Parts: sequence; structure tokens; C-alpha cells
Amino acid sequence: MRKILITNDDGVKSKGISQLIEMMRPFGEITVVAPFEAQSGMSAALTIGKPLRLTELRSDDGLKVYACSGTPADCVKMAMNQIFKNVPPDMLVSGINHGSNASVASLYSGTLGAAIEGTIYGIPSIGLSLCSHRPDADFSGVLHYGKIIIDNFLQNPVSPNVYLNVNFPDLKPDKIKGIKFAQQGKGQWIKEFEQREDPYGFKYYWMTGEFFNLEPNNEKSDNNIIDKGYVSIVAHKIDNTDYEEVRRLESIWKL
Amino acid sequence: MRKILITNDDGVKSKGISQLIEMMRPFGEITVVAPFEAQSGMSAALTIGKPLRLTELRSDDGLKVYACSGTPADCVKMAMNQIFKNVPPDMLVSGINHGSNASVASLYSGTLGAAIEGTIYGIPSIGLSLCSHRPDADFSGVLHYGKIIIDNFLQNPVSPNVYLNVNFPDLKPDKIKGIKFAQQGKGQWIKEFEQREDPYGFKYYWMTGEFFNLEPNNEKSDNNIIDKGYVSIVAHKIDNTDYEEVRRLESIWKL
Repeated sequence: MRKILITNDDGVKSKGISQLIEMMRPFGEITVVAPFEAQSGMSAALTIGKPLRLTELRSDDGLKVYACSGTPADCVKMAMNQIFKNVPPDMLVSGINHGSNASVASLYSGTLGAAIEGTIYGIPSIGLSLCSHRPDADFSGVLHYGKIIIDNFLQNPVSPNVYLNVNFPDLKPDKIKGIKFAQQGKGQWIKEFEQREDPYGFKYYWMTGEFFNLEPNNEKSDNNIIDKGYVSIVAHKIDNTDYEEVRRLESIWKL
Repeated sequence: MRKILITNDDGVKSKGISQLIEMMRPFGEITVVAPFEAQSGMSAALTIGKPLRLTELRSDDGLKVYACSGTPADCVKMAMNQIFKNVPPDMLVSGINHGSNASVASLYSGTLGAAIEGTIYGIPSIGLSLCSHRPDADFSGVLHYGKIIIDNFLQNPVSPNVYLNVNFPDLKPDKIKGIKFAQQGKGQWIKEFEQREDPYGFKYYWMTGEFFNLEPNNEKSDNNIIDKGYVSIVAHKIDNTDYEEVRRLESIWKL
């Protein structure tokens, strides 16, 4: 029986992970290790300097659910060390995230932080995200196209040291135009903080921001593909060495 | 006058950032925006869902120091939005980290999370780390070789969308053999948690772990270069799309 590890960054109680569990049940035996609380924007962060807790919430036929007090990457480490005991599951699925992880969001994403950790452990790993932040988002498009993607993922898995970042437009299945492979779009956030004053007269800041697309005409960029109504799939490497730049600098720096 | 932004992940009071400030003073006007508290292992994490604070600690001739309640990447965003007002400084230096950021540690590193954020903003960015976790570590090797690296960085900066990860062996300057360009070494942590029991009989876990080197004979791998007594420099990309893997999967998946 295929063993599947599921995690996310919106927390064990989010709608996205419940939908993912239902979507993945036909594919194998499921172990969920997900954060107690929302861990959005946690990237591949680890919890250092304070201890972690792990709690079993549910144990049914083919489904075990644990909550972990740490980050998404902590959840994967905890699953591997305390549950799978270093014999990896056959695949890791992280999500379904409430919100896009396309373009530079992939660098901040806790959903993908978990996929990175799975990949370091040699587990074929995939992150799924829906471009809607609503807690009651409609996942029907993800469930329809997600199954096709998981079927392909199982038949032709990713190469070692690579994970997939799949982003779904916030559309009903019949409005989604299809699935396309893509590249990480270039963009950044601007106007990132909303400044307020507390009741004592001191300033504080909420992170907000607008996404600024640096290549609005690149047809390969994931965020543009999603905007056109397609599901985007990007393959990401855990080795982000720029080998060409290393050679270039090596030839001109005087060390 | 050259404008330099300094941050780190060990917090504004660490020895590493004090040493870095002294090292960088001859190079320009310095603004420090660093975390109030230690933020090790925070990767490129952002603070979402709770507000941030920014406090000016010191303002002297050519040196302004601010503390921010968030992560290293938050510090860079705060610096850009509230201090530099989106006109970027000429360079960002993050560190000097107390502990190695070679191999997969680069993926968890808050020091490099700040460098990633700087790079997204188009600021030439570099992270410096010393392979010693001691709070009173000896930075004399970093100060000597770091100056040579910063000189080169200013004369021949990195390409857009690339940042540098520099790791120094924990050796006196006369014991360091030189500086070498390198690649992100393949490795992972094992035996990652120490399990304890609290006074009420419940389990909790401290993250610890041992580094397991997956390519002990690769002469280009950063951790191996450091072990031999050299300073290692790796160029990292913020676009970690695996273009080759995208083409491969595109040709075999049935979508």
C-alpha cells in the first residue's frame, strides 16, 4: 500500500488540507502531520531555540492525523524522525494552500518549505495552492485537475532534488482552460506595510502589499499562466547554485 | 557616499553583527535593521498575521541602527519601505552569522533569507557566516578575508537575481588557506530531535541533529572546501526553476 505524507501551512484545521485528504484517499494510506496553527509565509523555516510538541488527533483506517506546534518544515522533520522513523513515505503532498504560491511567493511559501524538506529527504514532493485566500474557498477546480496531476506524478515522478509547485486559478472546473508547465515568474511586492498607531501612541506595522509583475508579457511565467485561466506547474530545484555565475566571478575576482 | 544596509539573523545584539559593522564602516554609510531577537533557521520567512515594530536604537555619524521585531526578511522589507523608501541601498550585507550556512543549511538560513529579500529588491546582496556557534566566536579570520571579498564584490558585483553565500572556517587568519568558489553541497540532517518529558508527563522535542554529508568526495562542495580550511563562496539564484526538468516532464506527462 502506497504511503502518503500530507502537510500544509494553513494549519491542520483548514479547509484546504481537509479537501486534500479526501482527494488523496484513493491513492494510498495517509499520514497527516500539519501545524496546529497557521504558518503562512514561513518558507523553509525551522523551530530552533524552543521545543516542539506533536499530538495525535485521529487514527482511522488508512488515515492518521497529527498536529505539530512548529512550521511546515518542522512537520516533515517530525514525521520522518518520530513516525516514519527515517523510512520515507512514497510521496509528500503539501496544501491545498489558501492563496497563490506563484512567482516570488514560492520563496516565502510554507507550503513549499515542506516540499523542500521532503525533497531533502528524497521523498517525491509536490505543493498545491489555490489562488484564493478565503477560508471557505471553492476547491472544486483543484479536486478535478489535482487528480490528473497526481496520476501523472505517480506514473512519472520528479527527478531527485526537484519538487513541484502547482497553482490553481480560483475558477470552477469548467472555467479552467487546462494545465501548463511554467517557470517561476519575476515579480516583487511593493507598498508592503500598513502603518498604524497603538493606543499608547507608538507605531506598528501590518504586512500587506501589492504584487508587482516584472514580466507581464512572459507567456511562460507561472502567474501569467494562472491569470489566463490555466493551472501552472513549476519544477523547482533544492540546489539553487548559479553554476554559470560561479564560473563568471571565479574568472574575474582577484582572491 | 555608498549606502550599505546591514542585517543578520542572530539579532541586533550579537557579536557577529557588531564585527560586521566595524568591518563595513570604511566602505560607506551604514544603516542596520536587524531583529530584536535571534531568528536562526528562519529561511525567507515573513511575519504575517501579527504586527511588526521598528525601533531606532542609535544614530551617529555614518551609522544608524534599528531593531525590528520580525524575521531577517521582514527587516529588509521594513528597511526598504520605511527607511530607504524604495530607493535601494548600494549593497546589503547579512551576518556575520554564528554558524555555518553551507550545504542545505543555505535553505534554512535566515542570514540568506535576508540576502534573498535584498536580491528581490535588486540590491547586490551577500551573506557572511562563520562556522562557529559560540556567542564569543573569534571573527579575526572573517575580518581579514571578508575585506578582500567585499572589495571584489564592489568592483565586480553579482549579476541581477543572484546573491552570494560566503562561509568562513573557524580558524585564525594565518591558518586559513585561501578563498574558493564552490557549489551548494548535498547533505541533510539526521537524528534531528531530542525527546524529553515535561514535569506533567508529556513529551516534547528539541531540534538538534547531525549533518550527514551526501558527497564527501566532491571537491567543489562548499562544506568540503570549508573543512579543508578555505573560505567558500557560492552564487545562489532566486529563480530556482529547474528548466530542464520542466521540459522533461512536459514531454512525458499526459495533461
